[in-house]
Amino acid sequence: MPVYKAPVADVMFLLEDVLEIGRYSGLPGFEDVSADTVRAILVEGARLCEAVLQPLNASGDREGCHRAEDGSVTTPKGFREAYEAYRAGGWIGLPVPTAFGGLGLPAVLNAVMQEFASGANLAFGMYPGLTQGAIAALLEHGSDEQKATYLPKMVSGEWSGTMNLTEPHCGTDLGLIRTRAAKQPDGSYRLSGQKIFISAGEHDLTDNIVHLVLARIEGAPAGTKGISLFVCPKFLVGADGTIGARNAVTCGKIEEKMGIHANATCVMNYDGASAWLVGEENRGLPAMFVMMNEARLAVGVQGLAVGEAAYQNAAAYAKERLQGRALTGAKQADKPADPIIVHPDVRRMLMTVRALNEGGRALMLETALQADIHRRAADEATRRAADDRLGLMTPIVKAMLTENGLRGAIESQQVFGGHGYVAEVGVEQFVRDARITLIYEGANGIQALDLVGRKLPKDGGRAMMAYLGELQAFLGRHAADEALKPHIDPLKVSAGHLQQATMWLMQNALGKPDNAGAASTDYLHLFGLVALGHMWARMAKAALAKGDDPLARAKLVTARFFAERLLPETGLRLARVSAGAGGVMALPAEMF
Amino acid sequence: MPVYKAPVADVMFLLEDVLEIGRYSGLPGFEDVSADTVRAILVEGARLCEAVLQPLNASGDREGCHRAEDGSVTTPKGFREAYEAYRAGGWIGLPVPTAFGGLGLPAVLNAVMQEFASGANLAFGMYPGLTQGAIAALLEHGSDEQKATYLPKMVSGEWSGTMNLTEPHCGTDLGLIRTRAAKQPDGSYRLSGQKIFISAGEHDLTDNIVHLVLARIEGAPAGTKGISLFVCPKFLVGADGTIGARNAVTCGKIEEKMGIHANATCVMNYDGASAWLVGEENRGLPAMFVMMNEARLAVGVQGLAVGEAAYQNAAAYAKERLQGRALTGAKQADKPADPIIVHPDVRRMLMTVRALNEGGRALMLETALQADIHRRAADEATRRAADDRLGLMTPIVKAMLTENGLRGAIESQQVFGGHGYVAEVGVEQFVRDARITLIYEGANGIQALDLVGRKLPKDGGRAMMAYLGELQAFLGRHAADEALKPHIDPLKVSAGHLQQATMWLMQNALGKPDNAGAASTDYLHLFGLVALGHMWARMAKAALAKGDDPLARAKLVTARFFAERLLPETGLRLARVSAGAGGVMALPAEMF
Repeated sequence: MPVYKAPVADVMFLLEDVLEIGRYSGLPGFEDVSADTVRAILVEGARLCEAVLQPLNASGDREGCHRAEDGSVTTPKGFREAYEAYRAGGWIGLPVPTAFGGLGLPAVLNAVMQEFASGANLAFGMYPGLTQGAIAALLEHGSDEQKATYLPKMVSGEWSGTMNLTEPHCGTDLGLIRTRAAKQPDGSYRLSGQKIFISAGEHDLTDNIVHLVLARIEGAPAGTKGISLFVCPKFLVGADGTIGARNAVTCGKIEEKMGIHANATCVMNYDGASAWLVGEENRGLPAMFVMMNEARLAVGVQGLAVGEAAYQNAAAYAKERLQGRALTGAKQADKPADPIIVHPDVRRMLMTVRALNEGGRALMLETALQADIHRRAADEATRRAADDRLGLMTPIVKAMLTENGLRGAIESQQVFGGHGYVAEVGVEQFVRDARITLIYEGANGIQALDLVGRKLPKDGGRAMMAYLGELQAFLGRHAADEALKPHIDPLKVSAGHLQQATMWLMQNALGKPDNAGAASTDYLHLFGLVALGHMWARMAKAALAKGDDPLARAKLVTARFFAERLLPETGLRLARVSAGAGGVMALPAEMF
Repeated sequence: MPVYKAPVADVMFLLEDVLEIGRYSGLPGFEDVSADTVRAILVEGARLCEAVLQPLNASGDREGCHRAEDGSVTTPKGFREAYEAYRAGGWIGLPVPTAFGGLGLPAVLNAVMQEFASGANLAFGMYPGLTQGAIAALLEHGSDEQKATYLPKMVSGEWSGTMNLTEPHCGTDLGLIRTRAAKQPDGSYRLSGQKIFISAGEHDLTDNIVHLVLARIEGAPAGTKGISLFVCPKFLVGADGTIGARNAVTCGKIEEKMGIHANATCVMNYDGASAWLVGEENRGLPAMFVMMNEARLAVGVQGLAVGEAAYQNAAAYAKERLQGRALTGAKQADKPADPIIVHPDVRRMLMTVRALNEGGRALMLETALQADIHRRAADEATRRAADDRLGLMTPIVKAMLTENGLRGAIESQQVFGGHGYVAEVGVEQFVRDARITLIYEGANGIQALDLVGRKLPKDGGRAMMAYLGELQAFLGRHAADEALKPHIDPLKVSAGHLQQATMWLMQNALGKPDNAGAASTDYLHLFGLVALGHMWARMAKAALAKGDDPLARAKLVTARFFAERLLPETGLRLARVSAGAGGVMALPAEMF
C-alpha cells in the first residue's frame, strides 16, 4: 500500500530559512505567525492528511463516485467522514478573513495545506479546494448580501463551491459560451444550458452546493464581452440563511475518467435555474479570473503534491527491493542482492524527482507569499510589485509544477519495474491522477500563451523587468561567493538564456504572433527552469548558512544535481524558442 | 471513437526510397519481395488490423480478461474471432522458414505488421507477438524433436507461446530465480515454483500454450550460471502431435493493471509440471536472450505503434475541433471559431509526435533489416556487421521508441484538452497502454546499462566504431549538398556530441562503473537522437530525390522540425553524461 508523509520539515526550512517569513510579521495575519505556531498548524494538518485522507486514496480510486437515477451522486466510502473531519478542523477557512468566519492566516500556509491534502488524496483535496476558489471569487466580486448569504457556510465547509465554465463545444474559448441567463422581474436570472467537466458538481459531502456559472444574458454582446458571472445554489437559500427549495440545476451524468475517480466530474444541466448576478453584467470573465488564478496556483500545487507522494513511494521501494549488485561491488553481501538504490540509474530517477519537487515547492511557496503581500502590504508599491510577480509566476507554477508532477509520477513508477504497472501496488494511480493537472484550469499550452502573450508585455514588461532585475542582483551579490559557485555559475548561464529568449521574442514576435505561439511552451519551460534554479540557489545559500545539519546537507547535494543535470535544459529551450514558427507552421493542415 | 489507419504509404517510402530493399533481392527470402508484393501484403495486413483488431481495442480495454475459479481465462468479446482471422491469415509464420510452415518472408515485413497490429490493438498484438518470440527461441535452441513437436502448431497459431522469467522476488536480477527443475528418469523435468507477470500466460484463444520457462536444475550453480530453459506445454503433446493430459501449470491470478487490460498478465503456478530442457543445462539465459532480443525490438515497435495511433487521433481532432482564432486572424471566418490546428502550440505538439514517430519507424525498420541481413547474407563479414548493428541498436530501439511512444501519447492526449481525460473518448487508453512498454522486456534503465555496459565495449567497441564510421561517411558524402544542409549541419553537431560522450565514457567510466551507470540513460538518449537524426537526414535525402510529391514535401518539413527542435537535445544529454556520478551518488540512502 502506498505511503505518504507530509513534508513538514522541508516546508519549515523553506518558510524559515529561505523565505524568512519572520520578515513579514508586520503584515496583517502574519503577526502571530511565529515559527512555532506555523509548525503546530502544519503538524496538525499533516496528521489529518496522513491519517484520514491518505488511507482513502486507493480505495476512493477503485470505488469512484456513483450517480443515481435521480441525479444524486455518492462519493466513495469514508469520504463523508473524512470531509467532516477536514471541515471541522477549519482548514477551508484558513486564509479567509476572520470577518467571514475564517482564520485569516497567510495564503502561503494555505498553499502548504493544499499540498498536504492533495499529496494524501488528490481527488479528495479538490472538494475543499474548489470551495476555496469560489470563496475567493465571492469575496472579491460578490455583493454584501451574497457574501452574507453564502460565505459563512462555505467557509465552515457546510456548503461547497464549484466553477462552471466549460460547455460541450467550448473550453478554452469561453467567448463561445451558450448558457443563457434570462432576467426576472425580481432582479434574479434563470439559467438554461449545459456545462460539462464540472468538478464536484454534485456529491453527498455538503448540505448545499454553490455553483458559480458563466452565462450570457439575453441580448449581451457576442464573444467574451458578453459573458456574466452568476451564483446559482443547488438549494435556494432563504433570507434567514436556511435551505429552501431545490433549484433547477441537476447532474445529468458523471464522466468515466483516466483518474481522480473519487472526484465527481459532472455534466450539469441548468433548466431555468434561479441565479443571481455576481459583479457587473458582461464582466463575468474578469470576475471568474480571480477564481481561475487561485485555481491555477492550486493546480500547480496539486502537480507538486502528486509528484511528492510518488517520490516517497519510489524512494521507500528503492531502499527495500533487493535486485542485482552495486556496480562497485556488493553493498549488502549478507543478503541475496543489494537494494536497488545502489544503482546510479535508480538514483538518477529519484534525484530528478526530488530536485523537481523541492524546487517546485520553493517556487510555489514564494509565489503564494506574493499573494499575501499583494493583499496585505501597507504600501502601494509593494502591493503592486507582489501582484506583478504573482501574475507573472502563476502560469509558470501551474504549467511547470504539473509537468514536473507527471514526470515525477512516471519516473517514480519506473523505479517499481513491472510492479509499478499493477493497480494493487498503487503507484500507477499517481500517473493517472497527475495527468489531469496538465489539462484543467487552462491546459498548459494556454498557460504558455498567457505568459508570453499577456504577462510578459503587460505594463510595458514591468513584471518581467523586475524579475530579471532581482535575478541579476542576486547573481551579482553572490558572484564572489566560492561556496555558492556551483549553483551561481550555472544559474548565470541559464539566466542569460532567459534574457536571450526574451529578447528574441521582443524582436521576432511582436509583428509575427505565430513566432510567439510557436515559442510559448518552450519559453515557459525555460523561464520555469530559471525560476527553479533561482530558488535552488537560494536554498543552497540557506543550507550553507544552516551549517552541519542533515537536511541542509541533502539540500546542497540536490541543489548540485539540479544545477548539473536539470538546469542546462535552458539551452535546449532557447534553441527551440529561437527556431521560430517556420517549421511549426509549414505543413498544410490536410497533411497532418 | 478512436481511429487507426495503418501507415502503409510511409512504410513503402521507407522500404523503397530510404532503405531501398530492392538492393537485397539476392538474399534468400527477398527474391520475390518486389515493391508490388510488399504493398499487397501490407495492404492486406492493414485491412485486417483496421477492420478487425482496432474495433476491439476500446471494448477490450473496458472488458479486460477474466479468470474463472478453475484457473481458465477468458479474453474480451470478439478476441477469439479476431485471433482466428489473424492466425488464418498466416501472419504469425510470416518470418518463419517455410520448412516449419512459415512464409519465410523478411523480418522487416514482420516488424511492419507488428506495428500495424499493435497500433490497432496493443493488447491483442501481444498474443501473436509472444508466440513469435517463443518460435524464435525454439528455432535457435530447440532440439529437432522439440521443433517438430511444437513449431508447426505455433507457426499456424493453433498454439501460442509465452516466456516465463519473472518471479515475485526477481525481475531484472534473474540470478535469483528459485523455480526448481527436478530431473526424471525419462530425461524430462518436473518444474515447481511461481512465475509472475506472464503475459498471455493463460487465455482461450488457442488449443495449447507452450511456456518457455527459466528454472534451476537441482544442484545447479548459484546465480545466472545455474539457470536452464525449459519448454512446458499447458497440455502434454503425444508422439503423434495430439494433445494429451493437462500439465500441472495453472494460472493462479491475473493482475489488475494500468492498461493492456485485454492481455492476461498471469501468475503461473508450476506444481511439478512436466517440462523438457531446451538447449544445454545451465545455459538458459543465453537461450532466453534470443527471445528477449526479438521481444525488445518488438516492444520498441509497440511504443512506436501506440504513439502513431495517438497521433492520428490528435491530428484528426485538431482539424475538427473549433476553438479560438488563429493568432494571425480568422482562418474560417464563416465558422464560430477556427480549428485548433491553426494554433502554433497545437502544431508544435503534433509535429513533435509526428517527427518522433516517423523517425522511430525509420530506425526500427533499418534495425529489423539488420536481422534479415544477419540471418540471410552469404558472406560472414556482412552477417557479422549486421549482427553488430542489431545488437547495438536493440536497446536504443526498445528504450527510445517506447519513451517517445509514451511522450507521443501524452502530447496527443493534451491536444484533446479535458476530453482527452475522459475514458469514452479513448485516447487516455493510449497513455495507459504505452506506459508498460517502458517497463517490460527489460526496463529502459536496463536497456541503457546493456548499451553502455555491454554493447559499447563488446569486441573492442567494433559495433560502435562501425556506426560512427558510417555516420561520418554519410556526413562527409553530403557535406557539400546545399539542399541537405538544414539536415546535415545539425546532425554534424549532434554526432560530435555523441563522439564526445563516448570519449567521456572511455576516459571516465572504465575504472569507475558508477560513472557509466549515472550516464547510461542520457547516453542512450543522446545516441538515440543521433540515430533518429541520421534516419531523418536519410529520409530528407530520399524525399529530395523523389521530387514534387506530397509525402516527400511533408517529409522535408518534418525533417526540418526534427533538426531544429528535437535533435538539439543532444547538447543537454551530453552535459548530463559529462556531469559524472558525483551528484547522483552523494546523498546517503537514508536521506531519500
